[in-house]
Amino acid sequence: MIIDKLFETVAKKGHVCLGLDTSIDYLPENFKNQFDNEEDAIFNFNKKIIEATKDIVACYKVQIAYYEALGLKGLNAYKKTLDYIKSTQNIIISDVKRGDIAKTAEMYAKAHFEGDFETDFITLNPYMGFDTLEPFLPYLKNKEKGIFALLKTSNPGFKDIQFIESKNGKKVYEIIGEKISSIAQNYMGNNEYSSLGAVVGCTSTEEGQNVRNTLKNIFFLIPGYGAQGGAAEEVSVYLKNKNGGVVNSSRGILLGYKKYDNGEKNFDECARKETLKMRDDILNVL
Amino acid sequence: MIIDKLFETVAKKGHVCLGLDTSIDYLPENFKNQFDNEEDAIFNFNKKIIEATKDIVACYKVQIAYYEALGLKGLNAYKKTLDYIKSTQNIIISDVKRGDIAKTAEMYAKAHFEGDFETDFITLNPYMGFDTLEPFLPYLKNKEKGIFALLKTSNPGFKDIQFIESKNGKKVYEIIGEKISSIAQNYMGNNEYSSLGAVVGCTSTEEGQNVRNTLKNIFFLIPGYGAQGGAAEEVSVYLKNKNGGVVNSSRGILLGYKKYDNGEKNFDECARKETLKMRDDILNVL
Repeated sequence: MIIDKLFETVAKKGHVCLGLDTSIDYLPENFKNQFDNEEDAIFNFNKKIIEATKDIVACYKVQIAYYEALGLKGLNAYKKTLDYIKSTQNIIISDVKRGDIAKTAEMYAKAHFEGDFETDFITLNPYMGFDTLEPFLPYLKNKEKGIFALLKTSNPGFKDIQFIESKNGKKVYEIIGEKISSIAQNYMGNNEYSSLGAVVGCTSTEEGQNVRNTLKNIFFLIPGYGAQGGAAEEVSVYLKNKNGGVVNSSRGILLGYKKYDNGEKNFDECARKETLKMRDDILNVL
Repeated sequence: MIIDKLFETVAKKGHVCLGLDTSIDYLPENFKNQFDNEEDAIFNFNKKIIEATKDIVACYKVQIAYYEALGLKGLNAYKKTLDYIKSTQNIIISDVKRGDIAKTAEMYAKAHFEGDFETDFITLNPYMGFDTLEPFLPYLKNKEKGIFALLKTSNPGFKDIQFIESKNGKKVYEIIGEKISSIAQNYMGNNEYSSLGAVVGCTSTEEGQNVRNTLKNIFFLIPGYGAQGGAAEEVSVYLKNKNGGVVNSSRGILLGYKKYDNGEKNFDECARKETLKMRDDILNVL
């Protein structure tokens, strides 16, 4: 099971999930100007970031929207980024948040668990119902793939739907969490976690503890560290025995060079420093 | 506003939204064998379907998953399909069901309202909250674009989340519907509908009437006709004054040739016959 590989990587290398949400305006001017087009600039920026951090991250999360925004050439840079991460033996989470049903969902599974865009984990949006997950599940056992289902996010609008309180007293995200945890039982690895995981953003400590205690078999993808305001103490609530989740930071690392004098020239080394700092900040509170 | 163009097209040409969810196994063998690769076969199949139906549909809905499944070459066929529909002056709904926040949502807006994959309408998944819609909204006024937000679907799992009853007695989809209707007020066209519409599948007549009466300013994208089991009477509940929605059929039309003797040879003419039949079946119950 892919979740065992992720669990063991976290134990060895820490919790950092480095988000390659690479926007062209994140690139230092001098670096960007070496390339004829945005796609090449972005891929080569990613390559340098990956090269500088490959031994100190748990995994990379690639946000497909940033590449899709650049059309066919952008998606070519996306594919090249996935291929480059694979060449370093690191684990990839493709943040695609797809969500559809029946044959359409089968097509999305084919799109991201096979072919040009093949990855290790994808994020999924379950709003249409739990049958949105089904076409992806056979890949968990047969092809060493994994899923992070959207559960509780931490954007300003997270309460609009996820926190609607049902008449039995449970919030929508709690109802979804229980169901995901139940499906996840069928895809357990050797380390008490399932290859069907969940995305949980930092909201309050109480909610975090509740989620961690209720969804014991669920490995978490925790966004919102750094640029989005989360801190080590907040994410630690979602971890147990120093494992059980990876913590994403994108801009905090990609734009780390802005914190250093002349950082632009060594943006990759700055990214490494910021990654190490984040890794150690998290380890220190566990 | 793009919604006025869609409204006027429905008034003139009927309600059929022809779904180009084109799977390679839908193509007649003899036709498929003329091409060296799946992408060319699919694009040329689409082209013949579009050519045969362009004067009798309200719009085309292109389901991106079927193209994404074929990787970069598939997405090239997707782009060529969009371009071909544009050349016929018809309206396109890109069924992408994206849903994300902040800068990531901005990137999805750029991906589908500009550049290679530019379209007229997209479908969106609001599960993360209503801030998922925000980055798309400026395009409604400034670039003649439109949205169909997922509201109430008709897949087997639709009750899992959308129909959770909140403590104030309203179902989740009803709460979302009210909010969408309220945001939609800011993007009204000249014909009582907004460029922010919603996807509503056929569940029960009572629910349908409730949705139609509550969301007066919302134009509907109604899936599930034909292959998925819906019938003209069921969809008519969602329309008012012979307008207010488009009705999608994909397999029912693309595979229409299977209903005719030697249909394989004239699959495009069969698609035209099935489209006309569907159009008239709907008009007859209104």
